[in-house]
Amino acid sequence: MKTAVLSVGTELLFGQITNTNTVFLSKELNNMGLDVMYHYTVGDNPGRLADMIRMALEDVDMILVTGGLGPTQDDLTKEVACQVFGDELVVNEKALGKIKEYFLRTGRNMTENNAKQALIPSRATVFHNDAGTAPGFALEKDGKYIICMPGPPREMTRMFEISVKPFLEKLSDGYMSYKLLRLYGIGESLLETRLIDLIDNQTDPTLATYAKEGECQLRIASKRSSREEADKAVQDMIDIVSERVGEYIYSCDNEELVDVVGRMLLEKGLTFASAESCTGGLVAAALTDIPGISQSFMAGFVTYSNEAKMRELGVSEETLREHGAVSEETAREMVEGLARVTGCDVCISVTGIAGPGGGTEEKPVGLVYIGFKYGDKCFVTKKLSTGASRKWIRNHTLLGVLDIVRRNI
Amino acid sequence: MKTAVLSVGTELLFGQITNTNTVFLSKELNNMGLDVMYHYTVGDNPGRLADMIRMALEDVDMILVTGGLGPTQDDLTKEVACQVFGDELVVNEKALGKIKEYFLRTGRNMTENNAKQALIPSRATVFHNDAGTAPGFALEKDGKYIICMPGPPREMTRMFEISVKPFLEKLSDGYMSYKLLRLYGIGESLLETRLIDLIDNQTDPTLATYAKEGECQLRIASKRSSREEADKAVQDMIDIVSERVGEYIYSCDNEELVDVVGRMLLEKGLTFASAESCTGGLVAAALTDIPGISQSFMAGFVTYSNEAKMRELGVSEETLREHGAVSEETAREMVEGLARVTGCDVCISVTGIAGPGGGTEEKPVGLVYIGFKYGDKCFVTKKLSTGASRKWIRNHTLLGVLDIVRRNI
Repeated sequence: MKTAVLSVGTELLFGQITNTNTVFLSKELNNMGLDVMYHYTVGDNPGRLADMIRMALEDVDMILVTGGLGPTQDDLTKEVACQVFGDELVVNEKALGKIKEYFLRTGRNMTENNAKQALIPSRATVFHNDAGTAPGFALEKDGKYIICMPGPPREMTRMFEISVKPFLEKLSDGYMSYKLLRLYGIGESLLETRLIDLIDNQTDPTLATYAKEGECQLRIASKRSSREEADKAVQDMIDIVSERVGEYIYSCDNEELVDVVGRMLLEKGLTFASAESCTGGLVAAALTDIPGISQSFMAGFVTYSNEAKMRELGVSEETLREHGAVSEETAREMVEGLARVTGCDVCISVTGIAGPGGGTEEKPVGLVYIGFKYGDKCFVTKKLSTGASRKWIRNHTLLGVLDIVRRNI
Repeated sequence: MKTAVLSVGTELLFGQITNTNTVFLSKELNNMGLDVMYHYTVGDNPGRLADMIRMALEDVDMILVTGGLGPTQDDLTKEVACQVFGDELVVNEKALGKIKEYFLRTGRNMTENNAKQALIPSRATVFHNDAGTAPGFALEKDGKYIICMPGPPREMTRMFEISVKPFLEKLSDGYMSYKLLRLYGIGESLLETRLIDLIDNQTDPTLATYAKEGECQLRIASKRSSREEADKAVQDMIDIVSERVGEYIYSCDNEELVDVVGRMLLEKGLTFASAESCTGGLVAAALTDIPGISQSFMAGFVTYSNEAKMRELGVSEETLREHGAVSEETAREMVEGLARVTGCDVCISVTGIAGPGGGTEEKPVGLVYIGFKYGDKCFVTKKLSTGASRKWIRNHTLLGVLDIVRRNI
């Protein structure tokens, strides 16, 4: 079944708020095996809304609308739905009761325009709103459906889970299964080249590659008559892909690299410490964003100045003078000093030139040394990302550090 | 001028990624006085993309497209643009040179499909891509415009700022001047109340308030025949607003709070150090994102464990035992120890409960103590944000720390 998601609200067109409703609904619909063909956003304008719904329905079987069900004058989604689907608004006693009940419960006065929310198209299947006052509904005509839900994400998601999802499951054909693989250390072009035969000959499962800042994603999806078949088809393709690019895959479940590394550290019961110069605490900040990481993350140092490198980590003045703060030697002394001071199982150090200033012919902006120590294993990796911004270099270095930890613990 | 924003990418229809490009472009276009009428999203399907562009152009003068310019087979935006605007793709030597240069610079091999990115519609105005390989372009026909930009936000925003914005400014009628004021420590509703008479009676300049995580924005815009008039009208309104809520305004130029604080530290020639527990390096990471900050930022400590607090900052075991790691006493000993160890002019400490676990009746999740020391001035501020997520608490604490520095140096 082909669907489209339509968001109503001028605030979206102003860029004041991010459209999370569309992301939520798209995920849910795809996971149910319903194809999402389009996203639309239109302001609080009945004429344009009507045109957009008509236009969408030429191409899809169902349109899911969020917003414009509220009590105010510019909330006109219901009127438009009636206009397009040939119906009229009538007072829905049950909805009216729920609304009165809601105001009683929340101890607020029910204003005149709130009663307007109990008006529902006469032929509609009503979806009650447990988190607010505006009910939603589904309306059908000639095998085409419109499903209207309130705009506030809390109300919409709740209504979807409780009422809309079951309604859709009755209509859905087949089952869609998909996995999103995350890869680091391989570019999108190279990834596609490695998988080109699979991509060219794809029918089901389907494969799609996406570039994400500093990393790559590969989506593998299958639509079959049963959940089991779909899941198996996806898993079989994951196995084939893993044989070709497995070393780069850090997650088959769309996890962030930092979450994967954090989980590995916690599962293995390893303590962790970081000593950062050019990343200035990014590694520590990223890892400590994980709930419960205090079991593993013990201490972090942002040794930005040479003094701090010497004072906190015992980097020798001679090393800094002879090789400079950005050098393999300094990275090594940093990570060794960090292990000495903290006694943590896994230690990493980062020193580099994030720019835009500070680069030289011999040591350009983007040059980064990453030190790693875990037991007897201790090494320094050199990375160079040229022509990149300070932010990019720092974030890319963060991923580089995390990937080194992932590959070596 | 009426515009529409069109996003190309099946991953958006899958709900895999949030459409931040559309939010960014909508804000920018509105700020320039261009009306955004519609948002559209379509998958990597040339037929549907062409239909959607044609349909949009019946109603708007300009459509801004992001995505589908990459090197892979499903990147077809350029072909479609040519089809709709009656043009053909030709090799753009300058673009090809830039792409070759990019691969040379990054030391990666240029694959065949990368050369495809140098194909540009023959009549197009080319926008070069400083952050990636795919160039963007503008194409005009019968007074209607299409502007195509790459999908990755980093590349798109950079291209918009450097090339597209100036291109649009030439087309815009009259001159739009606007300032985005940033405020911290006042809620949107209170801000609106303080300015309600100005907002109700607005014609030109216009005022609009926006809530942003933990802070507020106030947009003041004026459209006049000359740049000077518009600029003056905006500045006069800023003066009026400043008289009412000046203490909360940290920027009149849409700067981030961290950039304002970083500049203040550098201008005053003050050295800075941080000791963080619950924020885990967020403060250090945010400040060290600023180019040249190494003149001020000397050292940061992420003392996550009690051992680290004692070892690195000399917090007494007794204090930790009697008052706990999250206490005014610990925050004070952290910041005093930090000043002792680093000898920096300005020192801050943070200790709190970011959750979701670790909260108690007496010390709930969201409780945070911020220590500040600058010369003789040394104090601890208690903050409590209830019912918030770990991420929100950490980010909100970061803003709180920065605002304390801003107000006290």
